Amino acid sequence: MPDIPELSHVSAEGRIRMVDVGHKQVTERTARAEAIVRLGAPLADRLKRTGSVEKGSVLEAARIAGIMAAKRTSDLIPLCHQIPLSVVDIEADLGSDSVRLESFVRCHHTTGVEMEAMTAVAVAALTVYDMCKAASKGITIECVRLLEKTGGKSGTWRLDGKATAS
Amino acid sequence: MPDIPELSHVSAEGRIRMVDVGHKQVTERTARAEAIVRLGAPLADRLKRTGSVEKGSVLEAARIAGIMAAKRTSDLIPLCHQIPLSVVDIEADLGSDSVRLESFVRCHHTTGVEMEAMTAVAVAALTVYDMCKAASKGITIECVRLLEKTGGKSGTWRLDGKATAS
Amino acid sequence: MPDIPELSHVSAEGRIRMVDVGHKQVTERTARAEAIVRLGAPLADRLKRTGSVEKGSVLEAARIAGIMAAKRTSDLIPLCHQIPLSVVDIEADLGSDSVRLESFVRCHHTTGVEMEAMTAVAVAALTVYDMCKAASKGITIECVRLLEKTGGKSGTWRLDGKATAS
Amino acid sequence: MPDIPELSHVSAEGRIRMVDVGHKQVTERTARAEAIVRLGAPLADRLKRTGSVEKGSVLEAARIAGIMAAKRTSDLIPLCHQIPLSVVDIEADLGSDSVRLESFVRCHHTTGVEMEAMTAVAVAALTVYDMCKAASKGITIECVRLLEKTGGKSGTWRLDGKATAS
Amino acid sequence: MPDIPELSHVSAEGRIRMVDVGHKQVTERTARAEAIVRLGAPLADRLKRTGSVEKGSVLEAARIAGIMAAKRTSDLIPLCHQIPLSVVDIEADLGSDSVRLESFVRCHHTTGVEMEAMTAVAVAALTVYDMCKAASKGITIECVRLLEKTGGKSGTWRLDGKATAS
Amino acid sequence: MPDIPELSHVSAEGRIRMVDVGHKQVTERTARAEAIVRLGAPLADRLKRTGSVEKGSVLEAARIAGIMAAKRTSDLIPLCHQIPLSVVDIEADLGSDSVRLESFVRCHHTTGVEMEAMTAVAVAALTVYDMCKAASKGITIECVRLLEKTGGKSGTWRLDGKATAS
Repeated sequence: MPDIPELSHVSAEGRIRMVDVGHKQVTERTARAEAIVRLGAPLADRLKRTGSVEKGSVLEAARIAGIMAAKRTSDLIPLCHQIPLSVVDIEADLGSDSVRLESFVRCHHTTGVEMEAMTAVAVAALTVYDMCKAASKGITIECVRLLEKTGGKSGTWRLDGKATAS
Repeated sequence: MPDIPELSHVSAEGRIRMVDVGHKQVTERTARAEAIVRLGAPLADRLKRTGSVEKGSVLEAARIAGIMAAKRTSDLIPLCHQIPLSVVDIEADLGSDSVRLESFVRCHHTTGVEMEAMTAVAVAALTVYDMCKAASKGITIECVRLLEKTGGKSGTWRLDGKATAS
Repeated sequence: MPDIPELSHVSAEGRIRMVDVGHKQVTERTARAEAIVRLGAPLADRLKRTGSVEKGSVLEAARIAGIMAAKRTSDLIPLCHQIPLSVVDIEADLGSDSVRLESFVRCHHTTGVEMEAMTAVAVAALTVYDMCKAASKGITIECVRLLEKTGGKSGTWRLDGKATAS
Repeated sequence: MPDIPELSHVSAEGRIRMVDVGHKQVTERTARAEAIVRLGAPLADRLKRTGSVEKGSVLEAARIAGIMAAKRTSDLIPLCHQIPLSVVDIEADLGSDSVRLESFVRCHHTTGVEMEAMTAVAVAALTVYDMCKAASKGITIECVRLLEKTGGKSGTWRLDGKATAS
Repeated sequence: MPDIPELSHVSAEGRIRMVDVGHKQVTERTARAEAIVRLGAPLADRLKRTGSVEKGSVLEAARIAGIMAAKRTSDLIPLCHQIPLSVVDIEADLGSDSVRLESFVRCHHTTGVEMEAMTAVAVAALTVYDMCKAASKGITIECVRLLEKTGGKSGTWRLDGKATAS
Repeated sequence: MPDIPELSHVSAEGRIRMVDVGHKQVTERTARAEAIVRLGAPLADRLKRTGSVEKGSVLEAARIAGIMAAKRTSDLIPLCHQIPLSVVDIEADLGSDSVRLESFVRCHHTTGVEMEAMTAVAVAALTVYDMCKAASKGITIECVRLLEKTGGKSGTWRLDGKATAS
């Protein structure tokens, strides 16, 4: 299987394992991830029209939940390391049909923060879903994915093209 | 805005609030949700060929992480109630290009378990991502959504059509 | 010591203990508590003038943190029972010199929710402090106290007189 | 508003944010905070007379709860950083009318531990309240406040005058 | 394999699963478990002679840690249900060579509390170890086991013979 | 008492305290611990014969639970420091009568990881117990103990002789 690297989290005997980051260098590492929550146009329109009352409440609760979840990533994802984060930031934008969430996470540590960025937007998206689900059952979280990572031995990686809140 | 019900989690003054479930009846309530993790064919193929060694490890870790996360939903999502769950079950299937996760949650309580079912598959999907990310950066979680809920005053709701692991 | 009832959480031998609530009745129980965060007039004035930008952000973050903390009371206070709460609500009002927080908690359980109401306002107050501390080091949390409890064998208790945000 | 610094936790657009500590220096930082729990003289007297049986149990449980809470500050307060603490210490003194709690926290990190010191005494005070509430409903937590901080760019700050357990 | 019942937590296909307790009856259920921490005679003797200073501190911290851990059993053990406990009690006795811990847990729920009783003594024993490890590296936790369970369809079960702190 | 060092976690006045690690050096520190879960020969035999279906499920769940618990040691054991771990690894071996669990933990920090290694095997052992308890009530966790520690001022310590899964 020449094209696919090894899974770092599974040993040759099929045993789940943490990656040992004890010999990796402490450097600045960052990650960005995004999630799209498809609300449907009527609900998105309603949030927009009610302005700070509904839109503000939904997006701010989602941002706080995402920030708090990022700090607990290693409690949720079995093989993640505990990483003291320098900052977690989440942008939340309401489009005509959806909410787009984008996280940014930075640390100075021996391993990267991709999972923290992913967890931040996933939990923020679940919170948007929770706050809007009484108004529509058919809401879908689409597209939780990494946008960019920097730092560490593997350097920078960037996805080609971001989604926009549509 | 006749077509869109109120957001239950925002007051008329724009204040975030929990729904008071103190006067609702204790009944059996269930929910099912799904998530698709798009791995790409080469990685899906590799997991399939390594059989219990890699596929088994990845899917079992994801299932355990999802079950544990469902039990912590009220710790993650700000306005969710603490609900003692009767069972959480997660199926994980590897297709030719993706992993499909489906959760089932049941409780006997005064409010439903949609968020528990959604959180279960979202965290299971993040775990699949984590365990496979060394092999491919472009993995995407698509389509975290509710499939069905039963019980409570609003009764049964069902999405038309499920995804299949492709 | 005729006037002071026993401490329910200490045995005759001086051993810390949980109260056994296994034989108490499941009834509706509620509690209200308040906390005052003394900001000083210049800072309170600034929050007021910046309106939804600063005041809204500070009070909403405090309310969310307080709601989430109430759900975790039994994780923080060693001898508290795990109580599935029907609702937690927190009001936050900015006065000319202080923020006043008032919580309301309801459950149907075998024991009361005084500690949940107290924990909610205490953590909400700590969050106000955290968000404002860069602007003033001398902020003080004054007066975390129970206002009222209802339900259970001991029935209703009410403090004479509430504070007002001054 | 010349006299009041910016709120570090709110952006110009009114968005809640963590402070990015990624470029701050790792230095020794400490903080001290205090809380007073007003028990009333009859209850304070009773605790004193029962000596190690009641007084010891109440104060020791409060100290342990406060130490454990300090370690979880970033789980409770939405915008706090995860800080590996070098030590948390809590003194608990019973006066003729009240219990006085004083915390000391030290870290070597890029940001300070004021919130850890405040959280430690607040949760210790809630624990004193919990353990004594069966004996008196009118107990009040007064005066949770910072006494001192050292380290970091802003250096040392000290409150003028401490409370004493009265 | 006629003599060994099925593992309730593994499906016929080898998939880990929670037991569905949704159709079981809510009844009173209790469990007792014990743990022995072998300290060695010199250390046990020292604790005894220093009386409330050392012995009291070690045993009381262990009891509090065990009570708090029992409440978090479902957070630690992947397939355990969240059970609101009526009471957790832990006795801690110092013998001439060891500390013996015995837990008692009660609930009114659809499933039993064996794991809560086991987790309580296991974490209490780890805490004794932690507090004494500076004085002796060779301390061993022996014999974490269930003593008794009552309630539920399977009724009462009792181990023949308890350990005594020796 | 010349032969027994002081308890580091109890002050001369009998007050529980964390050890201040603020002035200790950041070095590599490791620890290994083991636990034995006595299943009895019929159950051990059954697990062995069902191979990956039962044995694999039980041991893998135990390993994951142990890894996750190690990361939460400071949440469980009152006086433990929060230590970002470089790696946690757990081996699980099924013998003819028992399961033997061995943990390995590494960090670069100012204090050691003995408690993390002990907590990892203790919670892994509780998980084995939980998953097998429907098949046999008489399962006992024997012998949770430290095997080795390295690093720090006190250097390397090694137990003479390990257990083997029998």
